[in-house]
Amino acid sequence: MKKIAREVKALTFDVFGTVVDWRGSITAEGRKLGRRRKLARDWVAFADAWRAGYRPAMDKVRRGELPWTNIDGLHRRILDELLVRFGIDGLTETEKDHLNRAWHRLAPWKDSAAGLKRLKQKFVIATLSNGNVALLTNMAKHGGLPWDCILSAELFGHYKPDREAYEGAARLLGLAPGEVMMVAAHKDDLDAAARSGLRTAFVTRPLEYGGAAKKDLAPEARFDVNAKDFVDLARQLGC
Amino acid sequence: MKKIAREVKALTFDVFGTVVDWRGSITAEGRKLGRRRKLARDWVAFADAWRAGYRPAMDKVRRGELPWTNIDGLHRRILDELLVRFGIDGLTETEKDHLNRAWHRLAPWKDSAAGLKRLKQKFVIATLSNGNVALLTNMAKHGGLPWDCILSAELFGHYKPDREAYEGAARLLGLAPGEVMMVAAHKDDLDAAARSGLRTAFVTRPLEYGGAAKKDLAPEARFDVNAKDFVDLARQLGC
Repeated sequence: MKKIAREVKALTFDVFGTVVDWRGSITAEGRKLGRRRKLARDWVAFADAWRAGYRPAMDKVRRGELPWTNIDGLHRRILDELLVRFGIDGLTETEKDHLNRAWHRLAPWKDSAAGLKRLKQKFVIATLSNGNVALLTNMAKHGGLPWDCILSAELFGHYKPDREAYEGAARLLGLAPGEVMMVAAHKDDLDAAARSGLRTAFVTRPLEYGGAAKKDLAPEARFDVNAKDFVDLARQLGC
Repeated sequence: MKKIAREVKALTFDVFGTVVDWRGSITAEGRKLGRRRKLARDWVAFADAWRAGYRPAMDKVRRGELPWTNIDGLHRRILDELLVRFGIDGLTETEKDHLNRAWHRLAPWKDSAAGLKRLKQKFVIATLSNGNVALLTNMAKHGGLPWDCILSAELFGHYKPDREAYEGAARLLGLAPGEVMMVAAHKDDLDAAARSGLRTAFVTRPLEYGGAAKKDLAPEARFDVNAKDFVDLARQLGC
């Protein structure tokens, strides 16, 4: 571990689910809208449905069936369908845009900011998210996330897990892939990063899909680090 | 001014000369090398010559005579010529690379960090520099510059004053050009930003080329703000 911690210069972080709690935050935004507009809806189901639309929408872009569309644009396409499906009528364009930007206001997990501050002492810390640059920048300001650099799939015109995203991040950071460690709560993201030569750190986020959901939280020997949160990650990396 | 400060959401900053003192920093790095290698050279002239090579090198890229090359690459091309011209022999590749990265370690003007911290309370603050992403990221860490976002010509494959750089910055920030204010100590940068619809703030940096150099420091009515440093800029923008 000491050798790895010495070779690695930068940590790149998956964001949705790994750094921030999208499900709790979107549910809370839905409830707020519901109170204001007197709408009784299942806002947890609404949050889950919004997130469920995300991967298929990105995959359309990845397969070339949709031209490059950033996440704000994909979120809005999904939202417009959900407003019909959940019978949420009569929102003004301003209200729809504000709701779509709920993804710019996601709340960090409680250890995220403290862990990042420790990691930042020793490493360059950057996002490497499918979220667009404006979304990630606004989210950092909102949640007090002290990134050194905002990197996004948007900069490469390729969504993760396309290799262009991982390789592009290392290139922009001026580092060899082996000097960059990908941090994520999702094993497929880490496996794709490893295929591009990045180091990997798995962080468990057991509540990402709610406490009752089954989620694969088992540590894996193929990852360079397995940590229970960002403070534990900092500790393991000697920060 | 109050209306402008309300409309503007993000400030984008030129960096070399506007945020950091490239001349003093490169001179100091040269002197350090000189002491270590027992080389008596005119390190101020060395710094000026390095900087003087920058615009012609970028213009070769802008005219398509050179393929896209980031600033680390252009700085290195210029450095290799200067080592011959200044008779600096026998540096190892590691020493040359360390010297080339002096541009990653430029020191901020004394008001820069304090002014940026104030401006960050109210606005998104981002670099918009011809420096590459790694250079700007490392420099921010070195000098304690609290950017919300690192934007660079490198992301657009176009150096300022090409319009793609200014328009690209607004697009990545998710803003209309008129919601972005370019901050620079160089009038040509601001004029180019204004042609792309950005707001403009001129900040005087009288010592950029040394105390004796003539530099155009006159305020201009065509800029939205004329300020004497970043703290003055913060004050004028109501931060």
